[in-house]
Amino acid sequence: MTATTLAYAAQSATSPLAPFSIERRPPGPDDVQIDILYCGVCHSDLHTARNEWKNTLYPTVPGHEIVGRVSAVGANVTKFKLGDMAGVGCMVDSCQHCASCGEGLEQYCENGFTGTYNGPVFGGENTFGGYASRIVVKQKFVLKISHAEKDLAAVSPLLCAGITTYSPLRQWGVGKGQKVGVVGLGGLGHMAVKIAAAMGAHVVLFTTSPSKIEDAKRLGAAEVVISKDPAAMAAHQNSFDFILNTVAAQHDLDPFIALLKRDCTMTLVGAPEHAHPAPNVFGLIFKRRRLGGSLIGGIRETQEMLDFCAEHNIVSDIEMIAMQDINTAYERMLKSDVKYRFVIDMATLEAKAAAA
Amino acid sequence: MTATTLAYAAQSATSPLAPFSIERRPPGPDDVQIDILYCGVCHSDLHTARNEWKNTLYPTVPGHEIVGRVSAVGANVTKFKLGDMAGVGCMVDSCQHCASCGEGLEQYCENGFTGTYNGPVFGGENTFGGYASRIVVKQKFVLKISHAEKDLAAVSPLLCAGITTYSPLRQWGVGKGQKVGVVGLGGLGHMAVKIAAAMGAHVVLFTTSPSKIEDAKRLGAAEVVISKDPAAMAAHQNSFDFILNTVAAQHDLDPFIALLKRDCTMTLVGAPEHAHPAPNVFGLIFKRRRLGGSLIGGIRETQEMLDFCAEHNIVSDIEMIAMQDINTAYERMLKSDVKYRFVIDMATLEAKAAAA
Ligand SMILES: [Zn+2]
Ligand SMILES: [Zn+2]
Ligand SMILES: [Zn+2]
Ligand SMILES: [Zn+2]
Repeated sequence: MTATTLAYAAQSATSPLAPFSIERRPPGPDDVQIDILYCGVCHSDLHTARNEWKNTLYPTVPGHEIVGRVSAVGANVTKFKLGDMAGVGCMVDSCQHCASCGEGLEQYCENGFTGTYNGPVFGGENTFGGYASRIVVKQKFVLKISHAEKDLAAVSPLLCAGITTYSPLRQWGVGKGQKVGVVGLGGLGHMAVKIAAAMGAHVVLFTTSPSKIEDAKRLGAAEVVISKDPAAMAAHQNSFDFILNTVAAQHDLDPFIALLKRDCTMTLVGAPEHAHPAPNVFGLIFKRRRLGGSLIGGIRETQEMLDFCAEHNIVSDIEMIAMQDINTAYERMLKSDVKYRFVIDMATLEAKAAAA
Repeated sequence: MTATTLAYAAQSATSPLAPFSIERRPPGPDDVQIDILYCGVCHSDLHTARNEWKNTLYPTVPGHEIVGRVSAVGANVTKFKLGDMAGVGCMVDSCQHCASCGEGLEQYCENGFTGTYNGPVFGGENTFGGYASRIVVKQKFVLKISHAEKDLAAVSPLLCAGITTYSPLRQWGVGKGQKVGVVGLGGLGHMAVKIAAAMGAHVVLFTTSPSKIEDAKRLGAAEVVISKDPAAMAAHQNSFDFILNTVAAQHDLDPFIALLKRDCTMTLVGAPEHAHPAPNVFGLIFKRRRLGGSLIGGIRETQEMLDFCAEHNIVSDIEMIAMQDINTAYERMLKSDVKYRFVIDMATLEAKAAAA
């Protein structure tokens, strides 16, 4: 017996998001049912709603920065009880038997993880995300939240933007005594600055906008460099232990690679629609530098990130919106007109429905 | 008091190499003087002779795969005595006080190492390489050779092609139980196959030429894949622990990146004249893969490589030429018409001069 659930969906690549009813499964023995309070708005939501990655199953219900309250648990559920705060990020399942799953790296599941929305693209039923009043998820993929209740809305972006930046910062050993670069001050970049600073690093934020200097410093950057200024860039040559590049727009990677010390890495977490210009091979060869990529983070590491952020009082800087404002929010997001993450107050979905 | 030494030099980017007299310094207290027996012919020699990197000082005497016999030693020299076999590779000096030099990584000297030829490009006197009857080098930059005397000619390419491939194979921990790819079967690639196989790896050679299959297997490759065959490539997806890419010609990196396991690296040791197409960021992100570069190797590691090769009976496959054949050899090298390295028999330089 499934439960009808209010949601917002796109019916095609060109239709705006609009009210829609979906069915959620009744919680099985290992399931946690969550009444969604807040859902962050990620660029992937927009890419998927508009089929920009050419793999969207319609109708599609985006949303993978989910925070809510547990409203039912299956018989085998031990981690959660009714009324607990809980989070769901980008994944709701994975094969659980491959080497990556065995290492807690479900995001690299050899058989493909199941996304929180637009999940089993090849076969299986579609999954519906967090632009909805409720979700049912295996307890293994549900996160515990220990932030104060007043912070819940601002916690939701941690589930994607937070872990996407935390994971590579941890993977490449960022900590005290290190000089760490963050390229771009958007949803991902502003989380990276906060987290890297909390890890003890000397954080340098790279931006093309002088208007972001003050904000970057407020968020924790020790220095801000305008990346279009060659002299400012040259002053930092060969000095970085790690650079996290959060910019998805096409741009030249070489000026940033040149800032890395020998044997150090720049990791990309944004995937551009049009390829970046090819990096100069000499920039890699002459200092044995590395260019890498990183995809969100595993469930165990996501829990670690949430606990780290709670301990360091880290949340996202957000702008709260009503569910019915989502299409306008997408347009503003395309212009980077948000500081730094839209979060949907899911109470507005029910209110709207009640009023209708 | 300097000593006049027979050599072969290019006087400009468009003049062929021809006989030329250079001055070598008399050996100082820390110097080793070597009578050159053999010098391997590296692509860098040709790039420099023709000013393809736009930094050549003329006249230029190429050659940095040098093997010879010690004919004089300074008062402080303890590592070598008269009559010893000795080698010189790509470097003859470095600052000796930066962090990289301190770690024995003179190739990454923060102040720039001095190349064996075309050395102090910015200020200082030019250096002249191994296309000459004699060279004088600081003992610190002279290598000991323990191969059998009959192998000396075939040892000379180890000083550049050998260390350029050995260093990244060691750096990324290649060994038994690993599946390692080598892209390209030229001067560098054929050394990489031999060395990686001797390290105990399962070596897969990638080539565009079916004609190279037999040779690659003879050199130690367990498998050969024709990289233009998408089905053959697909069979190896996500299976490599490391890939060493030795191809300097512009080519698409993505099909090789897709063959790496999660968290594994492809290292480039060839620098293309025209940039490779930009690698697809998704290929890096979805398996946390890395793209890197590597430059020759330090002096300590070069000695380790020579000893490793002596122990495993590894030398280069060579084609011996006379000094006066160098211009023809360059033309053949441009067509990859050499298996797998030209080596100049330096006795021909003296013979020619005596006859003249
Ligand atoms: Zn996201
Ligand atoms: Zn799995
Ligand atoms: Zn060379
Ligand atoms: Zn140095």
